[in-house]
Amino acid sequence: MERPIGVIDSGIGGLTVLYELKRQLPKEEFVYLGDTLRCPYGSKKADEVRQYTWEIVEYLLTFDIKLLVVACNTATAIVLEELKQYLSIPVVGVIEPGARAAIKSTETEHVGIIGTENTISSQAYEYALKQINPNIQTVGVACPRFVPLIESGRISGPEAKQVVHESLVNIKNDSSIDALILGCTHYPIIQPVIEDVLGKRVTVLSSALETGAEVSASLTFYNMHTTKDEFPLSDPLILTTGSLSVLQRLKDEIFHFTNSQVKQVSIL
Amino acid sequence: MERPIGVIDSGIGGLTVLYELKRQLPKEEFVYLGDTLRCPYGSKKADEVRQYTWEIVEYLLTFDIKLLVVACNTATAIVLEELKQYLSIPVVGVIEPGARAAIKSTETEHVGIIGTENTISSQAYEYALKQINPNIQTVGVACPRFVPLIESGRISGPEAKQVVHESLVNIKNDSSIDALILGCTHYPIIQPVIEDVLGKRVTVLSSALETGAEVSASLTFYNMHTTKDEFPLSDPLILTTGSLSVLQRLKDEIFHFTNSQVKQVSIL
Repeated sequence: MERPIGVIDSGIGGLTVLYELKRQLPKEEFVYLGDTLRCPYGSKKADEVRQYTWEIVEYLLTFDIKLLVVACNTATAIVLEELKQYLSIPVVGVIEPGARAAIKSTETEHVGIIGTENTISSQAYEYALKQINPNIQTVGVACPRFVPLIESGRISGPEAKQVVHESLVNIKNDSSIDALILGCTHYPIIQPVIEDVLGKRVTVLSSALETGAEVSASLTFYNMHTTKDEFPLSDPLILTTGSLSVLQRLKDEIFHFTNSQVKQVSIL
Repeated sequence: MERPIGVIDSGIGGLTVLYELKRQLPKEEFVYLGDTLRCPYGSKKADEVRQYTWEIVEYLLTFDIKLLVVACNTATAIVLEELKQYLSIPVVGVIEPGARAAIKSTETEHVGIIGTENTISSQAYEYALKQINPNIQTVGVACPRFVPLIESGRISGPEAKQVVHESLVNIKNDSSIDALILGCTHYPIIQPVIEDVLGKRVTVLSSALETGAEVSASLTFYNMHTTKDEFPLSDPLILTTGSLSVLQRLKDEIFHFTNSQVKQVSIL
């Protein structure tokens, strides 16, 4: 099926999901829209998040996308069910894949979750986990210092390690936890630091990695994999409602989408 | 949705998939049918496998199953597409989840696959891998000594290690391989021995583990998760067309389905 997969995010964090999608599905075409102008969604009211999300989704629908990935935890928590209900294409969020990865991985059935303050206070991961396995015990920790750290490029070195260490002290001290969900799409960028701080006892699970696999599975379920033979195809098209500079830098330095075009768009 | 999930296999190997299904989806009910009377399917002609598979599927449909898991590599390779086409319920096989696990895991894009002689000669995993990512290079190795070893209960100790070592010499010597798919549902039972022989360089991937996650994902896609609140529920119902003894022993010793009933059924 020769239509692109659409990926939306409030800003740049969803690029970790886009990276995994392209890595796991290299034949597919992708168009990404980051609403960097109105980022972050995490501190907005639910009605605003709903309105903004629908606006960027409607913009992406003009690309005739065959499947929509909501690569933002806040938008997934607030708008996913509504999007699934009203859109005629499959919609995949990031929360259920992350929850399933933890269910698959944990032996102790004690799972840590880290994310923005809004994601943690929404308890969306706890709900997703317990819906499937009520035995799972959870500890949620908000890490408000991670996103500024990552967006400023300080993704390794002593300062990063110090911030991660201080933020994760409750996870590290809970010896029953054997799996940690990165409940914010920014966090996989500092996953090596998080793994270093927590040590081998805790398996660190990226929603990005699992969302890639679930999108692949849903393309199989709906018989929607591309049938194109040309390979390799172009890098994803990256759209933003705000400044080009951060996306330009990240796409090259971290994600190696060197051939991606980055374009500013006006969605209103 | 208060209907069981059906799981079919040619014999006992599918119990590794059933175990993961129940572990990852503890609220769901399961009914398993192993065609031990006509096992193994791996050495039969395609038409026979097709006929036998349809017969056991039709028997399971009388339980009003909501989703069918084909927990047998041979039946998946030969009959999955046909089952998907003609049944009105979702059907999940074991090959695509295993392929997706490897795509997710590999960094070198060199993947080993082990299975029965029929599974390896069918190249079903190679096809599934390359359909999604044509860059993946594969090495397939048939391990005909593994199933007799496992069915006789010799799943650890020096003999098991010796057999695994001799069978996997080509995988171990290929330094580019960083992921190995267990392409036979029996093999997860000796996964610790396989991991010990291959060392840390190679990530060993069980189709059972990934099939559990994909069944969970498809219950989400089709909005079919059970809404029951009682928990824990009963252990799976295990049906066999042949002898009860091996299933009785395995269900207790390896899978800890101590409350499962095992019943012999006549499907014709």
